[in-house]
Amino acid sequence: MIKIGILGYGNLGRGIECAVRHNPDMELAAVFTRRDPESVHILTENVPVYRARQAAEKKDEIDVLILCGGSATDLPWQTPEYARYFNVVDSFDTHAKIPEHFEAVDRAAAESGHVGLISAGWDPGMFSLNRLYAGAVLPGGRDYTFWGRGVSQGHSDAIRRIEGVKDARQYTIPVEAALEAVRSGGNPELTTRQKHTRECFVVAEEGADLARIEKEIVTMPNYFSDYDTAVHFISEEELLRDHGGIPHGGFVIRTGKTGWNDENSHVIEYSLKLDSNPEFTASVIAAYARAVYRLHQEGQKGCRTVFDIAPAYLCPESGEQLRKHLL
Amino acid sequence: MIKIGILGYGNLGRGIECAVRHNPDMELAAVFTRRDPESVHILTENVPVYRARQAAEKKDEIDVLILCGGSATDLPWQTPEYARYFNVVDSFDTHAKIPEHFEAVDRAAAESGHVGLISAGWDPGMFSLNRLYAGAVLPGGRDYTFWGRGVSQGHSDAIRRIEGVKDARQYTIPVEAALEAVRSGGNPELTTRQKHTRECFVVAEEGADLARIEKEIVTMPNYFSDYDTAVHFISEEELLRDHGGIPHGGFVIRTGKTGWNDENSHVIEYSLKLDSNPEFTASVIAAYARAVYRLHQEGQKGCRTVFDIAPAYLCPESGEQLRKHLL
Repeated sequence: MIKIGILGYGNLGRGIECAVRHNPDMELAAVFTRRDPESVHILTENVPVYRARQAAEKKDEIDVLILCGGSATDLPWQTPEYARYFNVVDSFDTHAKIPEHFEAVDRAAAESGHVGLISAGWDPGMFSLNRLYAGAVLPGGRDYTFWGRGVSQGHSDAIRRIEGVKDARQYTIPVEAALEAVRSGGNPELTTRQKHTRECFVVAEEGADLARIEKEIVTMPNYFSDYDTAVHFISEEELLRDHGGIPHGGFVIRTGKTGWNDENSHVIEYSLKLDSNPEFTASVIAAYARAVYRLHQEGQKGCRTVFDIAPAYLCPESGEQLRKHLL
Repeated sequence: MIKIGILGYGNLGRGIECAVRHNPDMELAAVFTRRDPESVHILTENVPVYRARQAAEKKDEIDVLILCGGSATDLPWQTPEYARYFNVVDSFDTHAKIPEHFEAVDRAAAESGHVGLISAGWDPGMFSLNRLYAGAVLPGGRDYTFWGRGVSQGHSDAIRRIEGVKDARQYTIPVEAALEAVRSGGNPELTTRQKHTRECFVVAEEGADLARIEKEIVTMPNYFSDYDTAVHFISEEELLRDHGGIPHGGFVIRTGKTGWNDENSHVIEYSLKLDSNPEFTASVIAAYARAVYRLHQEGQKGCRTVFDIAPAYLCPESGEQLRKHLL
């Protein structure tokens, strides 16, 4: 059994807990929280909840520690710090800062003799893998990533910060015509506006100026001004009833040519349709936790990404079984 | 530059030649044929064509030899035999015999100090990878593979063997309703007939009994009797004009649940739409030839499959570049 620890018990942490339950070769060993452990009620019976600062003391009880903090302020220090004591996996998703995060985790993990895997999830993660595989197979082609239909937490938060807004949920939606243009192999140049639309469901405070709120949303720089944005004002009950989930997904499409004179076209498409963004992310992380455990058993150390892991490491089955049943 | 050799110059061999042209870090070093080399005209200038039996003499001129024979009678002996002299890649696709083929290639390659990679292509190959990744991420889910719309060489050949048939082309077509049922997450049990239909374009000899030919096709055991099959009689000109290509493709879809009580559903879908089956297969093989070259440079040896190759090995870019641009 692979003993899993969770650091940070929010949506992602709870997703990891559920993923562990779906993987018969894993067990949850402990949850670490920055809150008062007495106030944190987890789903699994008979598993201790400790203070985050106690984690290092428990290092011998855990094979892989999953870091479930945020990419903005938590993971940049947490992943290198905990790699001193544990094999670690995180879902660091600030694409531009991945190289420096990799370096920091690599130094810490190489020094302590652990394996750290960063940026597991679906983007970065499964989408990255599909960009890589498709790019390797169709060099000279072109790839496109579309996101949605799904809830963007960052955009929802941006709306909530507007005066007069009580709550909000923002969906990112890929434009069907753009998807079709890409699939046709025409290598279209697509503007931000042509690729995605944004749809906002907003609960306003009583008596708030709805026209002003709508205008503030659709003209907000970076978040909305480059998109066609629809704003719907709804009641709090409707928001809870119809928009309580955290769905997401998207598409990675690559088109490219083969043949002596590029006479043949090909379309490679990978898509995800997810009821729960954090639970799917957690499911990917769980599979990579298995890989990290095995690499460490082999004596490997340092930082890895999904690009560095041979697929067979993700599965509990032997190479022989995989060749027989899946190849 | 990675020096590529091709053994067997049919559709796949020519596809490899085209793929080498699309990969700037590769060059074609030689083609080996069982025909008279004088009769084989390749596309690349100033590259020698040798007799297959001369291959071993040329081992120092080639980094990776691509075996382009058939899975039924060529590859079972060719891949182990040539692994004695070369790093090799094949597209062995008799799924049931992969384990024994793996063992034979592994013995030969381990003994000679080479790397052999078997069963590269799209199924087995990219489809296998997608079955593995999706299965690792959604344990307890279920996956479905659909093929087509595409030309099945085996079924086309079976029709050609019927008396009174001059030529034929058979397309395998996935049933749209079955695809939708799978994507909906309903885990349907699908019969052979419900998953695919077959469409045949047949050129009959003059005066042949068309009704008899049609009946022989649709009732043919193993090939057609378990399917809804449409038969169209067309002229030889129409066959050449409208059915000269070798398109193929298909879908790998996995659905699965997450959450403490399986309350959330997810759909992972990978699809290919290929103008040329052999050229796409060749493009996958070329990427794996790069991986094989690098593994050999590292001193590895023995047999591998796509499951054993860390994705980064497929790309000419460094790990640093991949993390920066693709992750």
